[in-house]
Amino acid sequence: MSSSLKRPEPTPPHALPDGAAAPAGAPLAIICGGGAFPLAVAEAARRAGREVVLFPVRGFADASVEAWPHVWIHIGRFGRLKSEMRRLGCRDVVFIGNVLRPRIRDIRFDWTTLTLLPQVFRMLRGGDDHLLTSLGRLFEESGFRLVGAHEIAPEILIPAGQLGSLAPAAEQMEDIALGRQALAVTGPLDIGQGLVVMNRHVVAVEAAEGTDLMLARVAELRANGRIKAPPRCGVLVKRPKAGQDRRLDLPSLGVRTVDGAARAGLAGIAVEAGGVIVADVDALVRAADRAGIFIYAFERDGAGEA
Amino acid sequence: MSSSLKRPEPTPPHALPDGAAAPAGAPLAIICGGGAFPLAVAEAARRAGREVVLFPVRGFADASVEAWPHVWIHIGRFGRLKSEMRRLGCRDVVFIGNVLRPRIRDIRFDWTTLTLLPQVFRMLRGGDDHLLTSLGRLFEESGFRLVGAHEIAPEILIPAGQLGSLAPAAEQMEDIALGRQALAVTGPLDIGQGLVVMNRHVVAVEAAEGTDLMLARVAELRANGRIKAPPRCGVLVKRPKAGQDRRLDLPSLGVRTVDGAARAGLAGIAVEAGGVIVADVDALVRAADRAGIFIYAFERDGAGEA
Repeated sequence: MSSSLKRPEPTPPHALPDGAAAPAGAPLAIICGGGAFPLAVAEAARRAGREVVLFPVRGFADASVEAWPHVWIHIGRFGRLKSEMRRLGCRDVVFIGNVLRPRIRDIRFDWTTLTLLPQVFRMLRGGDDHLLTSLGRLFEESGFRLVGAHEIAPEILIPAGQLGSLAPAAEQMEDIALGRQALAVTGPLDIGQGLVVMNRHVVAVEAAEGTDLMLARVAELRANGRIKAPPRCGVLVKRPKAGQDRRLDLPSLGVRTVDGAARAGLAGIAVEAGGVIVADVDALVRAADRAGIFIYAFERDGAGEA
Repeated sequence: MSSSLKRPEPTPPHALPDGAAAPAGAPLAIICGGGAFPLAVAEAARRAGREVVLFPVRGFADASVEAWPHVWIHIGRFGRLKSEMRRLGCRDVVFIGNVLRPRIRDIRFDWTTLTLLPQVFRMLRGGDDHLLTSLGRLFEESGFRLVGAHEIAPEILIPAGQLGSLAPAAEQMEDIALGRQALAVTGPLDIGQGLVVMNRHVVAVEAAEGTDLMLARVAELRANGRIKAPPRCGVLVKRPKAGQDRRLDLPSLGVRTVDGAARAGLAGIAVEAGGVIVADVDALVRAADRAGIFIYAFERDGAGEA
């Protein structure tokens, strides 16, 4: 549970006094939640010749981060994180990976965070988008520069077009169009980033439960006859929320999503090209082909119609 | 499984030749799905001095309809229903109660329905609203007049204001406002009529699963820590879809909804006054008071702000 820097120890050549700007070339701070993305981003940054320090969030990040220069952090200890980031000379900061919304009484606050408590309370009242935007602003107000994971590692962004060996049929393109339209109106309300459309009918909308549980619900509704549709029918549609700060919380797609979509009897998955991140595209495509479902990335609205 | 008229046999004084208009005073045809509403509407019509014939849908309607003049009907046998309605002199027809969307291969079609099959296929592709509107049009094209259950039985419409002994607090009014706004944009996409808002955050959106399963999901997400909120937090908000034909499928509220909201740890339920139907308001209010949750009916948009 220690939050001091662990093996391998990077020299902190750019250690900053409180409030000072870091020189270019300062190490990149990667605040790591759960899942495979943090290391994918760290590897991409290193490939690009950038020094990194990982700040894994205790309770969410995987232990595999410990192979990298890292400092474990705790939600609610913003003061500690800030001083560690400055000590190590970090200026740019990336948020990547899953962190569930904490219950305020479960957070142990440090002094800096306590002084920000009114702000923290306002942050926790509202949708995820609101929470993340406020969090991002907090870092920027402290002199850090918020950078999108996809700016550091553009290779995690899903490319446009058909990804595996299957393509959506005409009727699935209709479902995709309806799904895009629906997400365009729910996005500004910070409701979610995904839904399932079957036969021109939105049968499930993702909110706090997340994509995996929404797909499990569709599987269950099919099994108990509540949703009646032939096998391989329907599409999971995901895209970032309209107006969302893409430096924070881009929707992601992984093998687990593919398996969930297959269990829900869907024909495929459609996502916004460049708007959804994938830690390992090859593994994703193999899983989709194995499951017999398509993955299709449509162009972002206004960037040419799919 | 017989669909001939059962005890008590009404004399059919207004039996109509195919296509003719019925005289005023003709018996009201009530097409009955499941639940308590069909009999509530039948009783209200009878209290108003109107003769009724119930057409319970086999597989959905409760056997208690047999105490009334009735003819059991089957989904997919529109020709038979039409000729029975005409034989009995019905002109006005009400749809009321739950009927789940059938799987087309489970339907046994009669000849009339088969001739309408292209229309039926188009009806089944799309949302519930689309399905019901098409169904309503089919009846009107056959010379019947579609009447809303609430026009026959206005007493089933929920009145404006606070219903039980509890009222929403200021923060719950904020959640209600967000829920109304969200339903205003999802309604035209025929997505659903309900959602749950907690702390200015839409945590669940109802689609094919229905209100009861959505509430069960919220209960589960709270139990497993995915939604973190204190007890008695959040509001179930329900209203008809914007642009929806209110003669068909108004959302309903019952004791089961109250119990589900209580299990989900919500503070209350907010619905659109005059836009949601209740079979037994007294039972509903008793259940809400017992569960310690509020029921509040806001004014319809444009009809004065709540």
